[in-house]
Amino acid sequence: MLGRHFVQKSAENGMDVFRVFDALNDPRNMAHAMAAVKKTGKHAQGTICYTMSPLHTVEGYVKLAGQLLDMGAESLALKDMAALLQPQPAYEIIRGIKETYGESTQINVHCHATTGVTLVSLMKAIEAGADVVDTAISSMSLGPGHNPTETLVAMLEGTPYTTNLDMERLLRIRDHFAGVRPKYAAFESATLVDTDIFSSQIPGGMLSNMESQLKQQGAGDRIREVMEEVPRVKADAGHPPLVTPSSQIVGSQAVFNVLMGKYKVMTGEFADLMLGYYGECMGERTPEVIEIARAQAKKDPITVRPADLIAPEWDTLVASAGKLDGFDGTDEDVLTYAMFPSVATTFFASRPDGPKNVGKTAKEMAARAAASSDSAQAVSGPIKYRVSMGGREHSVTVERA
Amino acid sequence: MLGRHFVQKSAENGMDVFRVFDALNDPRNMAHAMAAVKKTGKHAQGTICYTMSPLHTVEGYVKLAGQLLDMGAESLALKDMAALLQPQPAYEIIRGIKETYGESTQINVHCHATTGVTLVSLMKAIEAGADVVDTAISSMSLGPGHNPTETLVAMLEGTPYTTNLDMERLLRIRDHFAGVRPKYAAFESATLVDTDIFSSQIPGGMLSNMESQLKQQGAGDRIREVMEEVPRVKADAGHPPLVTPSSQIVGSQAVFNVLMGKYKVMTGEFADLMLGYYGECMGERTPEVIEIARAQAKKDPITVRPADLIAPEWDTLVASAGKLDGFDGTDEDVLTYAMFPSVATTFFASRPDGPKNVGKTAKEMAARAAASSDSAQAVSGPIKYRVSMGGREHSVTVERA
Repeated sequence: MLGRHFVQKSAENGMDVFRVFDALNDPRNMAHAMAAVKKTGKHAQGTICYTMSPLHTVEGYVKLAGQLLDMGAESLALKDMAALLQPQPAYEIIRGIKETYGESTQINVHCHATTGVTLVSLMKAIEAGADVVDTAISSMSLGPGHNPTETLVAMLEGTPYTTNLDMERLLRIRDHFAGVRPKYAAFESATLVDTDIFSSQIPGGMLSNMESQLKQQGAGDRIREVMEEVPRVKADAGHPPLVTPSSQIVGSQAVFNVLMGKYKVMTGEFADLMLGYYGECMGERTPEVIEIARAQAKKDPITVRPADLIAPEWDTLVASAGKLDGFDGTDEDVLTYAMFPSVATTFFASRPDGPKNVGKTAKEMAARAAASSDSAQAVSGPIKYRVSMGGREHSVTVERA
Repeated sequence: MLGRHFVQKSAENGMDVFRVFDALNDPRNMAHAMAAVKKTGKHAQGTICYTMSPLHTVEGYVKLAGQLLDMGAESLALKDMAALLQPQPAYEIIRGIKETYGESTQINVHCHATTGVTLVSLMKAIEAGADVVDTAISSMSLGPGHNPTETLVAMLEGTPYTTNLDMERLLRIRDHFAGVRPKYAAFESATLVDTDIFSSQIPGGMLSNMESQLKQQGAGDRIREVMEEVPRVKADAGHPPLVTPSSQIVGSQAVFNVLMGKYKVMTGEFADLMLGYYGECMGERTPEVIEIARAQAKKDPITVRPADLIAPEWDTLVASAGKLDGFDGTDEDVLTYAMFPSVATTFFASRPDGPKNVGKTAKEMAARAAASSDSAQAVSGPIKYRVSMGGREHSVTVERA
């Protein structure tokens, strides 16, 4: 069991709390991981991925919470990766869980900040009894990231939920990361606040993926059609939460439907999703589309837990990893290879060179900018110069050949 | 009465709601403006400037609200220019006002977004009964601006306070201003979220002013001393809210105290503040510092309403404005001259040329960037080249003519 090895090694290497989640919220996809965590004696947190659909109700989330608790979850996480959790449902879900399973049920609320509303959702979740909320230090916060820690501290001052965090120490952490963040500017999102997500249900990252897919096909002007197609495809698939990988799977299929005709071409991943190979969603999948998937993928739909169909692969992985240059014989290396086969190959071979800093210091970035502006300095002209040659002056016009 | 002319003309030109405020929260500084508004038949809103100090209490704000209502305010504004209003005091102040003066007392909450917490404050203010809150469309929002309108709409969905605003129409407004904002990029603040304001009580704009004052004096390294001096100077002045102009007056005096010794040099404005020429603050002013101000400014402290000491100036202004090139004879022109004497002089003279667009279109900005990179492309040399011409090699030195 690859997953059990991963959990075991993570625990040995210092992981204390395991937030176990599944993109489709299929409890069967979480059961083995949760059992593996409990076997290590570490904290097993069962996770609810939050999304919005006609089928996703407060009652449904409360029921799922119960399934996770039955599975042995020591605490629950309400995970809102797309910043869709509004204050009122935040309050109602937390209250519902506490009232159904007892006030001592520990709940961790995890909201991203993308839509700008989730700090308020954290406030209402806290008022409803949430025990833990996730934030990021202000210099690493906001946009598609988390809400700022210092702001949460200020938010709770004077309420019965004062944090007692030491602001002086938080500000030192902030200043440290304010210096780190610019190194990773290349990976920053331009989005500060995006409330389109509420109407389209399409997270920002998914939208930009779809736009670039369309542009590659010379169909950049059809983005609106695709945005209207996404909720229909999502409904056909039984309303999966749109989070990696389901967001990419649904998004790509919507693009194909618009460009080629409805389900004329189906991606292998979407066929798998329709046939149950990623697990069960909250909604029924559309029978006609299941039939198209079956015909195109030449596979039957399944109702069992998908991972039950995967043969044990640990021994094979040990053997394959063992053949790589620089493999150090540890289970950790086998796991690295299992998760990232091509990255691991390069990493093992170059490991003796020591760690690499993928970020640039401010100085390196300045040097790089200067170098690129040097090459930009080649004249695109024409520019007139006065040129001395052999003691004689010439008027010379120069332009790029 | 200049103020009455201003109010009268504003009403004639379409202003419907007048938000009357004073930086020191001195009701005497608001009484005449409020009376002038009521005389026009337009809506007179009395304003409380929010700040934090040992003297500023919920009870104090509730009392000030009563003074504004007694003065004839038809509604109240709670104005939080520095984004210091936390959720709990927001709730308590609004509740206090409603319970003291009746649930039908109309209250408008106006928060900037700088500290990142005020959307939550708006939520708690609304729960406490606030009738109106101020926001900005998302593409013009956040940082030192306001909270995003669309986010507020999403925040209230499912609560008893649903806005019923049409999101489609909001998104059209957003898209329009998303195209406008880049034209004014030069005026943007880099601050997205700044929680230092809570500990230092120094708004971002004030801090950068003080930093540049110190640097001009070659004392850029003494900013921390100045930040510690600000609350002491503020206390000596009776804890005025730090908002234009009091923020600049207190900030400059703190810089002087650090560089020259405590109150060795006093700005004219700070002396006026100490002597009552801006009005009364909530706190007592320090008697020793009043004496220093009296000695340096060679004026006595006053306790009357400061504007009572100003002679009527309308006729003088009409005469002066009348001498300017391009003056059109209207009261509006007199008022423009009264408020902005030097700007008005240029404006009247160049008015026949038509309106100017201070912003640049995206196209103009691109053209400008291209032009500046063209000129950067010319070699600044001298650079030596080996040049073949007509089959012969030359050693050539090139520099810009």
